[in-house]
Amino acid sequence: MLKIKSVEFLIGELSKWPGVGPKTAQRYAYSILKNALQNSTAAGGGVPQASVQNVDALIQALENIKTGVRLCPSCFNFTEEVDRCYFCSSPERSKHTICVVEEPSDIERIESSGAFKGCYHVLHGVIAPLMGVTPDKIKIQELVQKVSENSVEEIIFALDLDLEGETTILYLTQALSGLPVKLSRLAQGVPMGSDMDYLDERTLGRALQNRVEIIDQPSFDKR
Amino acid sequence: MLKIKSVEFLIGELSKWPGVGPKTAQRYAYSILKNALQNSTAAGGGVPQASVQNVDALIQALENIKTGVRLCPSCFNFTEEVDRCYFCSSPERSKHTICVVEEPSDIERIESSGAFKGCYHVLHGVIAPLMGVTPDKIKIQELVQKVSENSVEEIIFALDLDLEGETTILYLTQALSGLPVKLSRLAQGVPMGSDMDYLDERTLGRALQNRVEIIDQPSFDKR
Repeated sequence: MLKIKSVEFLIGELSKWPGVGPKTAQRYAYSILKNALQNSTAAGGGVPQASVQNVDALIQALENIKTGVRLCPSCFNFTEEVDRCYFCSSPERSKHTICVVEEPSDIERIESSGAFKGCYHVLHGVIAPLMGVTPDKIKIQELVQKVSENSVEEIIFALDLDLEGETTILYLTQALSGLPVKLSRLAQGVPMGSDMDYLDERTLGRALQNRVEIIDQPSFDKR
Repeated sequence: MLKIKSVEFLIGELSKWPGVGPKTAQRYAYSILKNALQNSTAAGGGVPQASVQNVDALIQALENIKTGVRLCPSCFNFTEEVDRCYFCSSPERSKHTICVVEEPSDIERIESSGAFKGCYHVLHGVIAPLMGVTPDKIKIQELVQKVSENSVEEIIFALDLDLEGETTILYLTQALSGLPVKLSRLAQGVPMGSDMDYLDERTLGRALQNRVEIIDQPSFDKR
């Protein structure tokens, strides 16, 4: 694909996506090209394709994203609604429990578990001073304000278990310390389907520390 | 990203790309979304990103592809030029040697070797009756016509070494048999940097069959 400026431009744009290198971008660009020409009358490509990509549909999808999607003013999740997002405007979701996540994509993960029926608060990042992300750059002030103004009963932190996530939880715990709200975090322990042989020491240590008494099996002696 | 139609639509479109499943498409969609909102005034995402994707630039790139890129009328490579593609219109490329490839992307691979200074012919597929690709669906007739009308001296087949590639070479050899043109194919043998331990029997057999006499080392006896 040498000497074709518009293809190089497209490859350049696609290369900016997460996990997409020049080779993958090239592959995508060729696929788009092929389909663009297949849809036009000038072409007549040979191989029938299982999923013909319509370039117009892709452009339309991007335009929709650009013009239609905003941040929910309450929880900062992405939304298309006029006012608040699906969760914030749903009468079925408890407004008293708020799950704090780093990115909107984390919401989908939590929703798929089906174990949470409250609302969310998206920080849009975690505190990382070395990366230049100070507490004022993420939606921390908005969370504190929401908690102090509304009847929030519990805040669940669902952040990554790394240094930045821990720092953010620590910071938020202090920032919310004066308010009458219960703070909690996701349980740490052995993941489902795991093999004891391959567990790391810290996970196993935490799982032992936070061990849970077996109470729902009547045949066990309860100590 | 539940309940947001335009995001689901974008994910659907991205999922049609080669090698992109719903998970990867989701990741790309979130990245586009994040940057769309970061570029608009309404947002204020926290984490600074190394490469901010401008959605407008992406849309522009797709529009350029849609309107600007056509197939070269001579070799069926992609081109932006008004008349013929870079190779067909360049006075430095020999019009007497034609390299036959399956897809335009193969041209870049061959160009990167720097070993070919002729022109190309893109078949846009290979003969695959089981997939419904009969000889009339790919650019075979156009090649035969080009060879009979112009002073083509040699045709080099650079197709995949699979059943479809071999079938296509066989078909083309018969179709071109009456014409005064030399037909050749890429040498088969041991690839560069390969380990003798891991070569398959067929490659090794072919490499032995097609062994090359060492003639450029004067210290060797020439038999």
